[in-house]
Amino acid sequence: MKQRTLRVIPLGGLGEVGRNMMAYEYDDEILVVDTGIMFPENDMLGIDYIIPDMTYLKQNRAKVVGIAITHGHEDHIGAIHHVLEEIQAPIYATPLTIGLLEAKLARHGMASKADLHTVRAGESVQIGPFKVEFFHVCHSIPDGVGFGIETPAGLIVHSGDYKFDHTPVDNWPSDYAKLADFSQRGVLALFADSTNADRPGWTPSERVIDGAFDQVFSQATGRIIIASFASLVSRMQQVANAAQRYNRKVAFVGTSMLDNMRISRKLGYLDIPDDLMVSIEQARSLPARDVVIMCTGSQGEPSSILGRLSTGTNRLFDIVTGDTVVLSSRPIPGNEENVYRTINRLFQRGANVIYENIAPVHVSGHASQEEMKLLMHLVRPKYFVPIHGEIRHLKQHAILAETVGIPAENIAILENGQVLEFVDGEMHMGERVPTSYVFVDGTGVGDVSAEVMREREALSRDGIVLVNLRLARDNNRLLSEPEILSKGFVIAQDSDEIFNSARRKVTETVSRANGNLQKDVEESVGDYLYSETHRRPMIFVTVSRF
Amino acid sequence: MKQRTLRVIPLGGLGEVGRNMMAYEYDDEILVVDTGIMFPENDMLGIDYIIPDMTYLKQNRAKVVGIAITHGHEDHIGAIHHVLEEIQAPIYATPLTIGLLEAKLARHGMASKADLHTVRAGESVQIGPFKVEFFHVCHSIPDGVGFGIETPAGLIVHSGDYKFDHTPVDNWPSDYAKLADFSQRGVLALFADSTNADRPGWTPSERVIDGAFDQVFSQATGRIIIASFASLVSRMQQVANAAQRYNRKVAFVGTSMLDNMRISRKLGYLDIPDDLMVSIEQARSLPARDVVIMCTGSQGEPSSILGRLSTGTNRLFDIVTGDTVVLSSRPIPGNEENVYRTINRLFQRGANVIYENIAPVHVSGHASQEEMKLLMHLVRPKYFVPIHGEIRHLKQHAILAETVGIPAENIAILENGQVLEFVDGEMHMGERVPTSYVFVDGTGVGDVSAEVMREREALSRDGIVLVNLRLARDNNRLLSEPEILSKGFVIAQDSDEIFNSARRKVTETVSRANGNLQKDVEESVGDYLYSETHRRPMIFVTVSRF
Repeated sequence: MKQRTLRVIPLGGLGEVGRNMMAYEYDDEILVVDTGIMFPENDMLGIDYIIPDMTYLKQNRAKVVGIAITHGHEDHIGAIHHVLEEIQAPIYATPLTIGLLEAKLARHGMASKADLHTVRAGESVQIGPFKVEFFHVCHSIPDGVGFGIETPAGLIVHSGDYKFDHTPVDNWPSDYAKLADFSQRGVLALFADSTNADRPGWTPSERVIDGAFDQVFSQATGRIIIASFASLVSRMQQVANAAQRYNRKVAFVGTSMLDNMRISRKLGYLDIPDDLMVSIEQARSLPARDVVIMCTGSQGEPSSILGRLSTGTNRLFDIVTGDTVVLSSRPIPGNEENVYRTINRLFQRGANVIYENIAPVHVSGHASQEEMKLLMHLVRPKYFVPIHGEIRHLKQHAILAETVGIPAENIAILENGQVLEFVDGEMHMGERVPTSYVFVDGTGVGDVSAEVMREREALSRDGIVLVNLRLARDNNRLLSEPEILSKGFVIAQDSDEIFNSARRKVTETVSRANGNLQKDVEESVGDYLYSETHRRPMIFVTVSRF
Repeated sequence: MKQRTLRVIPLGGLGEVGRNMMAYEYDDEILVVDTGIMFPENDMLGIDYIIPDMTYLKQNRAKVVGIAITHGHEDHIGAIHHVLEEIQAPIYATPLTIGLLEAKLARHGMASKADLHTVRAGESVQIGPFKVEFFHVCHSIPDGVGFGIETPAGLIVHSGDYKFDHTPVDNWPSDYAKLADFSQRGVLALFADSTNADRPGWTPSERVIDGAFDQVFSQATGRIIIASFASLVSRMQQVANAAQRYNRKVAFVGTSMLDNMRISRKLGYLDIPDDLMVSIEQARSLPARDVVIMCTGSQGEPSSILGRLSTGTNRLFDIVTGDTVVLSSRPIPGNEENVYRTINRLFQRGANVIYENIAPVHVSGHASQEEMKLLMHLVRPKYFVPIHGEIRHLKQHAILAETVGIPAENIAILENGQVLEFVDGEMHMGERVPTSYVFVDGTGVGDVSAEVMREREALSRDGIVLVNLRLARDNNRLLSEPEILSKGFVIAQDSDEIFNSARRKVTETVSRANGNLQKDVEESVGDYLYSETHRRPMIFVTVSRF
C-alpha cells in the first residue's frame, strides 16, 4: 500500500522576498500555488527579474493538476507566462486575479493557451486530490485569498499575503469565520506570510490614509500628483474619494495603472463615477487646483511617469512650481537611493513632496506581529511553516509562533528546494530539489549564469583592457606594436603614459613567453596596471597570427 | 574702499550626504570647515569614495588661512590627505579629532606634512579675519564641536553634526550657554545640520541603549558579538559598561576599532579598566558566556569582521550556534541589501541576531525636528542656511525654520558650488563655482570621469562582445573567420548558434563595407544581438591588416 504522504516543495519565496511558488504533492499529483517573480537586487547587474527554478516541475510535468493563485501582485502572478511555457494545467483564481492574469497573458500573446477558472472567495474547487477552499483576506490589492487545502493527509492552511484590516477600503474584512471553521476541523499545518515578521504591533488600516489625504488635499493650492503601485487598487479608490471630497477631477496616467483601473472598474472592485474622471489631456486644460493626477513611479523607477517627471522628460505634462507630489508607498529595500533621488529632483523642480517620513500616506499590506499571532490562534495548527520572506523574517515568525505555544519541534524553517513531508500526521524533512536563481534578461531566460554575473560584476568594478597581438605564424615575433584599448578603466586620453608602459610590458612578455602566451600577457598587464592604479580591470588578449 | 563682503562657498555636503566642506571667505582670506568624504551610491560602480571638488581652493590656494574640523567622522575628516596635497594651511580641531587626524595622516605617510593645532571646546582661535569659537555639541563621536565664527561682516554659527542629548554617555551636554551667548551678540546666519530634518520629534538619548543592552546581556547564554561603527566611541563605552555589569570580558577586534579605542583611551575619552579587556585570542579560551566581542561591519561591508563572520571566512573566530549578534547601528540608505544579507547569513550560521527592528540597540547621532527648532530658538539668527543633506533634507529643514518664524526670504537652500554673499548685513546669492563628483578609485583621484562611469554601467548591464578581424592590407578581404568572444553577455558555450550567425553577419558586413568598417560591424553585430536577445552588450571591434 502506498504511503499517504503529502509533500510540500517550496520553489520560490523562502529565504527571499518575491518569486513565490509552492508545490503541494500527494499521490503523484501536484498543486502549484502562485507563480511570482522577484525584482533584482542592486548587484544582479542588468537583470530584468528572477523567476522560480522550475526544474522539479519540468521533471514532473505530467503530475501537475492545477495552479491556484492567491492574488494579482507580480510576486505571485508575474511568472505565469514562463510557467505556462513549461506546464499545461488549469489555473484557478478569484475574478479580479483572473482579470489581471488575462491582461498579462494577452500582453505575452498567450491568452488562448491558458485554461482559466474563476473561483470566488468562499467557494471551493476540487483539484485532483486537493479540495481547495478560497477564503478572503485583506491585502493591498482587492480580492486576495488564502487557501484551505483539504488533502487525504490532512488540512493545510496557506495564508497568501494578508492583513487583518477591520476597516478596509472595500469594507470586506478577512474571513475570520472560515479560519475558525478550519480550526474546528483540525489544521495539520499553517503556511503563513512572514513579510513583516520583524514589525511589532498591528499594521494600520488602509483607512488611516484618508486622513493623511485630507490634510494634503486641504493644504494643496496647485495640482496634486499621487504616485503609487499600479496594482494598489484600493489606493485608486481612496484618491478618487478624496478628489470627490475636495472637488477635484482625477486623471489616471500610465498604461499599467489605466489597465488595472479599467479591469477593476469593470469587475466592480473600483467605484468611481464617470464624471469624476478626466483624461490627462483634459486635466491639462483645467485650473491646477481642480486636478489630481495618479500615476506610477513610487519606487523611483527612472522610466516610470514619476521618474520621467523628476528628470523633466515626461511627454504629456511637467512638474511646475506649486505642484504637490505624494509618494503613497514605501521604498522596497534596495530601492531607497532611487526613491530619494527622485524625491530630491522633484523638490528641485519646485514641487512640494510628501512621502512616508512626512505624513502617513502609506500603510503596509502585510500583517505585523500581533496579526501573525492572531492568525495562529484562529487557525490553531499542529505544525507551522513561515513562508514569504528572507531568513530573518522566517526566523522572527518562528519565534512568534513559539510565543503563542507552538512547540519549536513543530516549526519548520525552510529554504527553497527543501522538501517537507507529512506522513500519518507527522512532519519530516524530505530531500532537496534543485533551486537556483533563474535570471530573465531581455528575451533570455536562464542564459545569464552565476559566472556571467561575476563577469558583469568584474567589468562594472574596473572595466576592461583589451590587448590585440599580431604575431608571425610560426614564432612569437610581433608583426606590429601591441594594440591596447580600454573601456570603463581610466580616462584613456589622459593615460598615455600608463598605456605606453603597458605596451612595453607586453612586448617584453611576448619576447620571453614560452608557455601560454595569452595567459602570460594577461598576468603581466594585469599586475602592471594594478601596481599603477590599484585596479583590476578584466584583461582580454586576442592573438592573430599570419 | 573694499566692500565688507563675507562669501560662503559650499564645496560639498549640500544636496548630498557626506563629503562636507564649506569655505568662508572674507577679504581674500579663506577658512575651510571640514574635509569629508562621501561613500559611493550603488550605481557609482567600482568607486572607493568621493571627495569634494577642490577646484576653487586650488585657484585660490594662497588665500587659505586655516582648516577647522568639527569632529572625527569620515564625512568630515576623510579627505584631509587629499586636501593637504593641494593646500598648505594649519588645521584646528579638538584633542580627540586631532588624535584621529594624526592616525589617518600617519597611515598616508603625511604625518610630518600637517600643521595641527589643538583647540579645546570652549576656547577660541583667531584664523586670519575669523575668530573661531569652538563650542561643544553632542554627537555619535566624542569631542564634537560647532563653530561661532566672528567675522567683520557679522557672526556666523556653524552647527557641525549635533544633537541635544540631555544624558549623553560622557555626561557632556551640548553647550547651551554658548549658543545663548551668540544669540545675545546677534547672529547674522546659522548654518545647521539637516541630516534628520524629515524625522519628527526628538532623537532619543544614547542612554536608552543601556536598557536594550541590559536585555540582550541578561538573556544571552553564549557569546555576545556587537557590531558598530569604528568611530562610535560612546558605544564602546556602553558595551564595556554592560560587560562589567554582567561579568563578561570585552575584546575589541579590527584595526580601525582598536586604533580608535586606543586613541580615545589615551586621551581620556574612554574609561575602560585594563582588566575588563582581553585580546581576541584570550577571548577564545574563555567560556562563551564570559565574553563580549565588539567589531566593525554593521553596514554589511563584505570585507569587515562581521561580513567575514557571516560568510565563514573570518580568520580568528567563527560564528557558532548560541552566539548573539547585535547590530548596534542603522543601515545607511543604499546599504540595506548588504546589511540584511549579512543578517540572513548570520541567522543561517546559527546566531540569534538583534538589529534595530527587533530592539532599540541604536540611536541616531543627529538632531531631529524638535531639536532643530530648539537650535534656531537658542541662536535666533537673522538668516538660516540648512547644510549637510540631500535636497529633501534641506527643504524640510527650511520648512521647519519658517515654522519658528524665520521669514522665507531669509532662508537659502544652496547646492554645492552656489556662493552666498553677506554684504552690510544682507544676504545675496553669488556666482557658481565648479563642483563635480571627484571619484577616488584605487590610487586614482579624478581619473574616473562620468564617461568612464557610463562605460562601466553599460558593461555591467549586458557585458561586452569582442570582434577581431584579420584583413588584407589593401582591401577588406578577410584572411580568416572573424573571431567573436564575449564576457558578461550570455553563457558562451551554450550560445554557438548566436555566435555563428553573428560571424556570418560580420562577414557579410565586411564584404559590403565602404565607409567606416569598424562602425559598420559594431552596428550590424549590435543590431543582430539585440534582435536575438533584447540586450545591448558593448561591441568592440579590432582590425588587424597584413
